[in-house]
Amino acid sequence: MNEDDRLRRRRAIEMRTPRDNRFHPHTPLASGAEFDAVRRMLERWGPHARKIGDDAAVINPVGDRSIIASTDMSVEGVHFRREWMTPQEIGYRAAAAALSDLAAMGSKPLGVLVAIGIPEEWRPDMDGLSDGIGEAAQMADAPVIGGDLSYSPQLVLTFTVLGTGQDPLLRSGAKPGDIVYVTGRLGGPGEALREMLAGREPVPGHRERFVHPVPRIREGLWLADHGATSAIDISDGLSGDLRHLAAASKVSMRVDLGLIPALEGVSAADAAASGEEYELAITGGEIDTAAFEREFALELTRVGVVESGDPGVRFFQDTEPVEVPRGYLHFT
Amino acid sequence: MNEDDRLRRRRAIEMRTPRDNRFHPHTPLASGAEFDAVRRMLERWGPHARKIGDDAAVINPVGDRSIIASTDMSVEGVHFRREWMTPQEIGYRAAAAALSDLAAMGSKPLGVLVAIGIPEEWRPDMDGLSDGIGEAAQMADAPVIGGDLSYSPQLVLTFTVLGTGQDPLLRSGAKPGDIVYVTGRLGGPGEALREMLAGREPVPGHRERFVHPVPRIREGLWLADHGATSAIDISDGLSGDLRHLAAASKVSMRVDLGLIPALEGVSAADAAASGEEYELAITGGEIDTAAFEREFALELTRVGVVESGDPGVRFFQDTEPVEVPRGYLHFT
Repeated sequence: MNEDDRLRRRRAIEMRTPRDNRFHPHTPLASGAEFDAVRRMLERWGPHARKIGDDAAVINPVGDRSIIASTDMSVEGVHFRREWMTPQEIGYRAAAAALSDLAAMGSKPLGVLVAIGIPEEWRPDMDGLSDGIGEAAQMADAPVIGGDLSYSPQLVLTFTVLGTGQDPLLRSGAKPGDIVYVTGRLGGPGEALREMLAGREPVPGHRERFVHPVPRIREGLWLADHGATSAIDISDGLSGDLRHLAAASKVSMRVDLGLIPALEGVSAADAAASGEEYELAITGGEIDTAAFEREFALELTRVGVVESGDPGVRFFQDTEPVEVPRGYLHFT
Repeated sequence: MNEDDRLRRRRAIEMRTPRDNRFHPHTPLASGAEFDAVRRMLERWGPHARKIGDDAAVINPVGDRSIIASTDMSVEGVHFRREWMTPQEIGYRAAAAALSDLAAMGSKPLGVLVAIGIPEEWRPDMDGLSDGIGEAAQMADAPVIGGDLSYSPQLVLTFTVLGTGQDPLLRSGAKPGDIVYVTGRLGGPGEALREMLAGREPVPGHRERFVHPVPRIREGLWLADHGATSAIDISDGLSGDLRHLAAASKVSMRVDLGLIPALEGVSAADAAASGEEYELAITGGEIDTAAFEREFALELTRVGVVESGDPGVRFFQDTEPVEVPRGYLHFT
């Protein structure tokens, strides 16, 4: 072992000895293989990782505002398939999914950085991808401020979104007594995905919800101003994502399946398991849902309550407890 | 064409009509296929992309400081090969390469976001990757503040680095009359790469420079404070990266091959073409190189001068013009 090796070995050992973990508490994560892997990384990083586990990182203070940052990778064949969408839709959707994390933080976008790994056979579709990314940037008022472009055997798009926030909407803010709300109507992406996986053409309305999710940026800012205590954007499915809120806030949630706003023809259980919605699930006190709906022409629906108790989510049909699948996980 | 399609088509058209390009000038880019692709994206994004083309994005002002951001993707089989390095070295190197962009901006790191796409067969190496990433985070005092983890057919690591800066060191600041400097001694990574590509074991010192580049963070801050006018970190090779500085600053550079600091046994031309060095190339007035060397135990060497004229770099051996290969480009 030479001197360099010794130095590196020593560094690696230091890294496994957290010195000041009390100064950078991470947000508690729900159970699951992906989160076990994250927990293990955090353990190894010790003091060299800080405040991990929310929808986005909060860097504070810079002047009187915090900087909010989040990163999101989309991989061909894992997060999307080429035959399901046009290049423009693929670019739009990957960017919108990343921007949705700013919505969940009640953060105003500053800009987007995009790293693109692109195979040779995708090169003619670069314009389409660019247009879709530009469409999302325009919609969220988040200009592209940086990027990286290289060859890759699969198309890989990593978006890092930056925003500001004065009082970010964390996952850890839900309190017993709060109400659980959800924006929009759920189920479209789940139904579309099921059809496409079976090689069938999805219903146009469901397909549109899958390929053209809308990051709820303005809605997130409004909710942060009107009594929301915690928020998450629905990427794994309402049932899975509420589990993240419950774990982060160390609370129990009770959700009434009959209240879940589902698209016509979609069961409440399927709506609760439908991922990649990019609607917001929030907790808060009494929020004026009618005012929200007037402002955004979008439903805001009460679906449950926050209680004290073991962190987790219990679903009920009328007064009967029911099981709801956890939704879609990418890392399994 | 339905209403949604029409709406999207209209958005796409708007996107190709830059309205306020004068408010977000991009940094001029050098010639080359990768940069043509970037130029084309910028054209399509119009006003939805801003100030692209430096080592990192500058978001200003937030309080009295700017936020500096850069993103960098490393793909297995493109930027590295598994058989060349340990998992810890792969994690360290990808993170260090991204952090090097903050060094080139004279920026103080705030933190790192890491998006990891990982194949099943790499899962046992997650700890090694984590340790390498943590090692780079520790070295640069840039904690991991966020991330994303998903499955991918190849290992893909995208790092987004964030820092602050009061007076960032841009690529566009070189002026006729400036001197061109370079930190450290070049050639190690190029020699190591050549040997590894030929299936041979590189010299340990060269291998170490390849697998364990040091982001020159403190050096970049010092140089920004001591008269540097522009900077870039050497990733494509000194000859290629000086071309970026010259293009961005709209100046001509004249470099004396005999002055290039090369490792023992490496020719000056090979040193000038060696990529992935992550040393800094800078321009500036008279800088106290002896003070720099005392401070950092690292050489700072004058290699040329900045002149007015067509943007580009001319190399001389004594007084004879010589051709130097452009170095390594990933996107060809």
